[in-house]
Amino acid sequence: MTGTTVGDLGEIAVVDRIIAATGQAPGVPVGPGDDAAVLACADGRVVVTTDMLVEGRHFRRDWSEPDDIGHKAAAENLADIAAMGATPTALVIALALPPTTPIAWVDAFLAGLLEESARAGAALVGGDLVRGDAITIGVTALGDLGGRPPILRSGARAGDVIAICGALGSAAGGLAVLSRGFRSPRALVEAHRRPRPDYRAGVRASDAGAHALMDVSDGLLLDGERMARASGVSIDFDSASLPRDEAVVTTASAYNLDPLTWVLGGGDDHALLAAFPAEARLPEGFVAVGTAVDAIGSGARVRVDGREVEQVAGFEHFRA
Amino acid sequence: MTGTTVGDLGEIAVVDRIIAATGQAPGVPVGPGDDAAVLACADGRVVVTTDMLVEGRHFRRDWSEPDDIGHKAAAENLADIAAMGATPTALVIALALPPTTPIAWVDAFLAGLLEESARAGAALVGGDLVRGDAITIGVTALGDLGGRPPILRSGARAGDVIAICGALGSAAGGLAVLSRGFRSPRALVEAHRRPRPDYRAGVRASDAGAHALMDVSDGLLLDGERMARASGVSIDFDSASLPRDEAVVTTASAYNLDPLTWVLGGGDDHALLAAFPAEARLPEGFVAVGTAVDAIGSGARVRVDGREVEQVAGFEHFRA
Repeated sequence: MTGTTVGDLGEIAVVDRIIAATGQAPGVPVGPGDDAAVLACADGRVVVTTDMLVEGRHFRRDWSEPDDIGHKAAAENLADIAAMGATPTALVIALALPPTTPIAWVDAFLAGLLEESARAGAALVGGDLVRGDAITIGVTALGDLGGRPPILRSGARAGDVIAICGALGSAAGGLAVLSRGFRSPRALVEAHRRPRPDYRAGVRASDAGAHALMDVSDGLLLDGERMARASGVSIDFDSASLPRDEAVVTTASAYNLDPLTWVLGGGDDHALLAAFPAEARLPEGFVAVGTAVDAIGSGARVRVDGREVEQVAGFEHFRA
Repeated sequence: MTGTTVGDLGEIAVVDRIIAATGQAPGVPVGPGDDAAVLACADGRVVVTTDMLVEGRHFRRDWSEPDDIGHKAAAENLADIAAMGATPTALVIALALPPTTPIAWVDAFLAGLLEESARAGAALVGGDLVRGDAITIGVTALGDLGGRPPILRSGARAGDVIAICGALGSAAGGLAVLSRGFRSPRALVEAHRRPRPDYRAGVRASDAGAHALMDVSDGLLLDGERMARASGVSIDFDSASLPRDEAVVTTASAYNLDPLTWVLGGGDDHALLAAFPAEARLPEGFVAVGTAVDAIGSGARVRVDGREVEQVAGFEHFRA
């Protein structure tokens, strides 16, 4: 099939091809191919989240292989399900593709998406394919709470331990490496291309009694501020406790940057940010990185080592 | 706010604005604003479908007002839920917008989307907003079967009555009118801009014992062929029974076209195509338009007045 494009095959044939590659997942009453899919949700509630990725903004075809982009598209949605304390169960995908897109690209993208979904225990149950000028990927993920309450970002209380599960800054470091025209350190580039969230961490946090939980998708400071604001508290981070990958530290130093720039500002690792009662035993994978305190004044919601964020050395704001 | 754009306000502020306009729907455990929404699905199953609309391909800002585009984006997804014999309950929306998009456009789009969702009884429970070069709208709709079995497109049997609920050809006529630079007949232009599916028709069909059900989104012939193929039957349409709107007939004639071109080939009205047992009493809104028969030969799955489709006078294939 080398060289064949989406335009050559036609959208209907490409959809048939995707459905054939997807297969019928066990335990899914109605999978792809009808007007809609039907999914079991024995809990009586379903968790749902959606995200869109646009070529040139969220990924570049010259920086990421198609299977990496498939992994990433699935991961960032599935991570949001985990961040509610739920287990991912399914996803649907809406895809706009230029007619010139190689079928081989679509196949590899789909393989990556299916691999990441399988890692999370979720089935691809439906989708839509249209023409567009830029590759645009809309993923909606669904999840199951298994009888547990959803853990919101608004539940943190003064006195809570703030904890993190997962890497911080590796994906941002990888993006910086690629932006400078390099391909290594490999660990950082891979972290950017293919984040690997721990999809079971949300349930573990829920079972350990977490008061609040959220996916770190826009950086620890920005998302920490969101949790603080939603919860009506302030959050004090202890920079010495923050997970610092060795490659993050050495690469940032080589670029003459404070590693905290990436650790505090980079979000695409999809770490989980949680607030636990002070007496809770932190579940596997979580490390304490700060404390929730009574809201201070009107402005500052997040502090690092007792200082307001604007004063943190080396911090570069990643906000778009 | 006249003149203010998405880029002026920033994406985070636009999202806050959308969440504020959306509000918290009653009966939705967790609405917009967290990592994911939580939706009740007492049935123990949830119906899910997704569709993407790209500016320039599925709508044009100079041909449709933003509230019309909001209606259309909601309608085409909600219609797919109805086509399973289910009731729409919720939707999530992923939106790529150029920074130059006026906030007034976003507000009107959202108002249209919310109005159509309310007409269907569905709540907007979440979304994502990113930058893109073309307005791209990814909608995922969810629905509830209320204890009924899902009605698939694959259930038609030889001897079934084939029936239609809703208009055929009006939206295609409206598109033809706009393509020629006209703005009337108004009824056709409105049908193109703002389809009005009957979201309760799927449940009525299910309750009346429909064997098969599907949304007509790509034209009666193409979608009829899909139903026939999925069901392993052929479908004979009786052209005299097909609903023919007066504006469709007169406008097609004025353009020197056979009205059947639009009636058989136009799909954006989102009529419902159903197969009922011969003895069934057709529910409100459905009219018999043909019969399912034993599959004939290998090729022809759909006939009109006993003839294979290629021979139908005036038929122009709308397939993309």
